[in-house]
Amino acid sequence: MTDDHSTKGAYVTSGAEFTRDTNYITTHITRDGRDGYPVEPGRYRLIAARACPWANRTIIVRRLLGLEDVISMGLCGPTHDKRSWTFDLDPGGVDPVLGYERLQQAYFARFPDYPRGITVPAVVDIPSKAVVTNDYPQITIDFSLEWKEFHREGAPELYPEKLREEIDTVNKRVFTEVNNGVYRCGFAGSQAAYNAAYDRLFTALDWLSERLATQRYLVGDTITEADVRLFTTLARFDPVYHGHFKCNREKLSEMPVLWAYARDLFQTPGFGDTVDFTQIKQHYYVVHTDVNPTQIVPAGPDLTNWLTAHGREELGGRPFGEGTPPGPVKAGEEVPAADWVPQN
Amino acid sequence: MTDDHSTKGAYVTSGAEFTRDTNYITTHITRDGRDGYPVEPGRYRLIAARACPWANRTIIVRRLLGLEDVISMGLCGPTHDKRSWTFDLDPGGVDPVLGYERLQQAYFARFPDYPRGITVPAVVDIPSKAVVTNDYPQITIDFSLEWKEFHREGAPELYPEKLREEIDTVNKRVFTEVNNGVYRCGFAGSQAAYNAAYDRLFTALDWLSERLATQRYLVGDTITEADVRLFTTLARFDPVYHGHFKCNREKLSEMPVLWAYARDLFQTPGFGDTVDFTQIKQHYYVVHTDVNPTQIVPAGPDLTNWLTAHGREELGGRPFGEGTPPGPVKAGEEVPAADWVPQN
Repeated sequence: MTDDHSTKGAYVTSGAEFTRDTNYITTHITRDGRDGYPVEPGRYRLIAARACPWANRTIIVRRLLGLEDVISMGLCGPTHDKRSWTFDLDPGGVDPVLGYERLQQAYFARFPDYPRGITVPAVVDIPSKAVVTNDYPQITIDFSLEWKEFHREGAPELYPEKLREEIDTVNKRVFTEVNNGVYRCGFAGSQAAYNAAYDRLFTALDWLSERLATQRYLVGDTITEADVRLFTTLARFDPVYHGHFKCNREKLSEMPVLWAYARDLFQTPGFGDTVDFTQIKQHYYVVHTDVNPTQIVPAGPDLTNWLTAHGREELGGRPFGEGTPPGPVKAGEEVPAADWVPQN
Repeated sequence: MTDDHSTKGAYVTSGAEFTRDTNYITTHITRDGRDGYPVEPGRYRLIAARACPWANRTIIVRRLLGLEDVISMGLCGPTHDKRSWTFDLDPGGVDPVLGYERLQQAYFARFPDYPRGITVPAVVDIPSKAVVTNDYPQITIDFSLEWKEFHREGAPELYPEKLREEIDTVNKRVFTEVNNGVYRCGFAGSQAAYNAAYDRLFTALDWLSERLATQRYLVGDTITEADVRLFTTLARFDPVYHGHFKCNREKLSEMPVLWAYARDLFQTPGFGDTVDFTQIKQHYYVVHTDVNPTQIVPAGPDLTNWLTAHGREELGGRPFGEGTPPGPVKAGEEVPAADWVPQN
């Protein structure tokens, strides 16, 4: 079993299909504190990495909901080693709140013999400096439901009760076929496994293109959790998955509906302003040495096209429904302009 | 020193820029036979491989000039091993004329201690079964000049005297910056070497786009040797160089002038009908294990777009000048339809 936002070493198993380890620490942070970790402003720290699509979801949702002053955020650098994601971007290589060099330390603080890969995102209990959960699909849902009392004014409803069933259905297919589907292509251990993965991926992208041709968002007429989950894969498609993972029937920019949809989200406050294309490229091309042994990071593609007009307003819908967009990115959490749309 | 149409093993040298071995066996086949090998119908056999861009040039020129019945052709398969290109496509794995399994045998027949990589194209003297020359830039020029007496009626002048100086100048820049430039990207042994190679390549492609915006062909108003040399690199750009060699500022299909120019040539008899996209992809992705250790061959991109209208006729010029296009591909030398525009 291998993983990608974790640190298990080899990614490709010769002759085999890629299988994701989906066992996570599933402790919940809840209003009623039933797992021992009650919702409490200032108590928890989200540890993410801009490079990682699963972590990127949490950065987006935290910002959309305005939880920045309630749940602090630490960011690991893009190129972890075999042992752990590290705080190499911080002064002295140490997270200023936890005092850790390696995210692994927070896992060991909770489980001294923790046997699995060290993954982002993780939510850490600051008093005990121990990981509470790394169960990323639950983290963003809990941000929406359990932390509601602390949302900013005008925060969107990303997981509204009346759409929940449809969101879950879409999310399931997007996860197996797209979010994980690109990894199934890139980490395939045989030509047959790759070919099957490629067909599955593009079949799903064609389904999404069809679905999104006539509706602005994946479910309902505002942004939801479903859009967040698809977006972080689409943002990585042309810079990484197209070449590095051989997902190359077309570029995203050659799939008109999905490309317009992705740009629409990218240009919505809370989405594109969390994306660091430079770190994204560094992560995949440097870390996966069994796919890219030279570790050379491509200079392309030209990504300024993310800023072009998308025309999706014509489909109706309002990104924030009755709510409002988030304000500017919190000071200190901005993606450097040069990383947002890379210069060569 | 490493090479790509040869068989030297490693392609990437850590820390170093890629340097092509440009020392070849420079014996000429001439009308006056001054090197011991006079022009003589039926005496020589061109050994090529459809995968290789340098060999592809010779396949194109032989067909454009109608030399098929004068110089026979043997084809090696796309995935040579460390020792040699092989005749694995032939019945029994043996070239039916030379009786060889490996092209290396023809090199050793000429030079028993031949120390360099075994390259295609090579012209072999059938009586002695020994390589005469593998000097590919000279082979096509000699096809044009030394074999003129045997050209088909209506054959184009690919290297006309009055344009020779300009063709040489263009060829030189196209060779160092484009033909070899893509390899300099793909085999770069450091990030700095890659970055420099990428800039050189796209600077040259921008120059070509500008030059070809207002003229249909590279030099003069008919096809010449210069177009043949640029074409075989462009044909490999989207299926291979864009992803495998990280030449990914854009796809060829995203550079409008070069893309129309390439399709114009592709649709000209003698060019596209020599291109085997399946073999091309197999060659690079399977042979370069230090770039693609999984040896998985991407299923994409969709290449049916090579057949779309290009609109270059508006620029004037006539592909064959006062001459005529070649007739159908010689029986037995056709590229299988499924390889020409691959199905997934």
